[in-house]
Amino acid sequence: MRVVNWFRRRKKRIVVPRLHSRGEVATGTNRIDFAELTPGLPQFLAQAAYLQLTVFEALSEAVANAPTTEVKEVVSEVAGHSLDKHHDLVEELERRGADAGDAMKHYAPSIDAYRARTHGATWLETVTTCYLTAGLLDDFSRRLATGLAADAAARIQQIYAKPDGHELLVDQLREAIDADPRIASKLAMWGRRLVGDTLLIARTALALPPSSPSDEARLEPVFTEIIAAHTRRMDALGLTA
Amino acid sequence: MRVVNWFRRRKKRIVVPRLHSRGEVATGTNRIDFAELTPGLPQFLAQAAYLQLTVFEALSEAVANAPTTEVKEVVSEVAGHSLDKHHDLVEELERRGADAGDAMKHYAPSIDAYRARTHGATWLETVTTCYLTAGLLDDFSRRLATGLAADAAARIQQIYAKPDGHELLVDQLREAIDADPRIASKLAMWGRRLVGDTLLIARTALALPPSSPSDEARLEPVFTEIIAAHTRRMDALGLTA
Repeated sequence: MRVVNWFRRRKKRIVVPRLHSRGEVATGTNRIDFAELTPGLPQFLAQAAYLQLTVFEALSEAVANAPTTEVKEVVSEVAGHSLDKHHDLVEELERRGADAGDAMKHYAPSIDAYRARTHGATWLETVTTCYLTAGLLDDFSRRLATGLAADAAARIQQIYAKPDGHELLVDQLREAIDADPRIASKLAMWGRRLVGDTLLIARTALALPPSSPSDEARLEPVFTEIIAAHTRRMDALGLTA
Repeated sequence: MRVVNWFRRRKKRIVVPRLHSRGEVATGTNRIDFAELTPGLPQFLAQAAYLQLTVFEALSEAVANAPTTEVKEVVSEVAGHSLDKHHDLVEELERRGADAGDAMKHYAPSIDAYRARTHGATWLETVTTCYLTAGLLDDFSRRLATGLAADAAARIQQIYAKPDGHELLVDQLREAIDADPRIASKLAMWGRRLVGDTLLIARTALALPPSSPSDEARLEPVFTEIIAAHTRRMDALGLTA
């Protein structure tokens, strides 16, 4: 077990646990506290708001290209939840005096590139992206928010506790997956690719010291529970993560 | 002045006024009452809801392709208003026992084709489409709703009375138009084309008898005020209708 001091904002020594294999949940007291990696409130809000807008963009594209009006209607409900969350986060940002458009600008290049990479070639891939990446990013932001001041953290948890309608996306995807094993295998591959790209973009939201060791492995325990939750979302689709 | 009997649902004789030139507002008592052309409530709601969803799709595309995060944020607010209106209309439909997805299906082919025709080749054309067609279609639906039963009409007027954020689109468009006369001239042409396509799709929402005379001119007075309002929206952009 190595002991390192790698957090800029709080100069306490962190015990880095042994790496866990993918999907295994870190247990016990030797776990890195997610809250240690939380950026400042404006940075957190601007990035979370822009990520949510990106999820909305994917959802609204899925609305536009839905195969039937019934499906269109269902997905439009999910898109509405996502847009509401985005506007709630923007409101939090603006009540602190920030201009949301300006604050989000810093995060646009990397998140836009992420959105292009995770776009998907078919409607089903786009919907899979919506479900899996929104799930992962919301989960990530909710955990990261625990490191904010108590009042801000509470308000932000309330935003993420609102309905997201993701179960409606699961219904759509399960129907297609159950009907065709080739679709299942394609979407499983797509889901695995998404988790990599999404963890990378999530990682950019962490407050890491400039002198952080380049050893990415040290960050992995932070993501263990997030990967486990991703695996459960894949399971809900009947796919192997 | 000709007197014709061309309304199926109410067999009263309608005095058709002389045609007015474009933009001229029909006055006096010889005007056709818009309410005479109102379809049944489920038909009205399904078509209005699907038109609103189409406006939302155009707006969400404008969000995705916005040139800056500031503009993206502004347009996302307008998209949210449109999606809220759509969901309000769907709720009206579903509280009457209809399945919204199924009810809208009938209108999808013609409205989807309309959406494709009015898509726009550039971001500014898409935003112009959002502003001008949403304005015209909302105006149209609001007028058409006056022919519904009083309680339904009142609830629907409330939906359309909610904020639409269109002034934010005007700001975006004016900025581009004022900066470049070539843009102004292109968007003026685009706006003129949009009004034709949009009046055509609006016309399909009218309850016309199967034996209606093919003479489209007889319908024109109904649209006179709607065209006048369109002209005012073009004016607001500094464009000649």
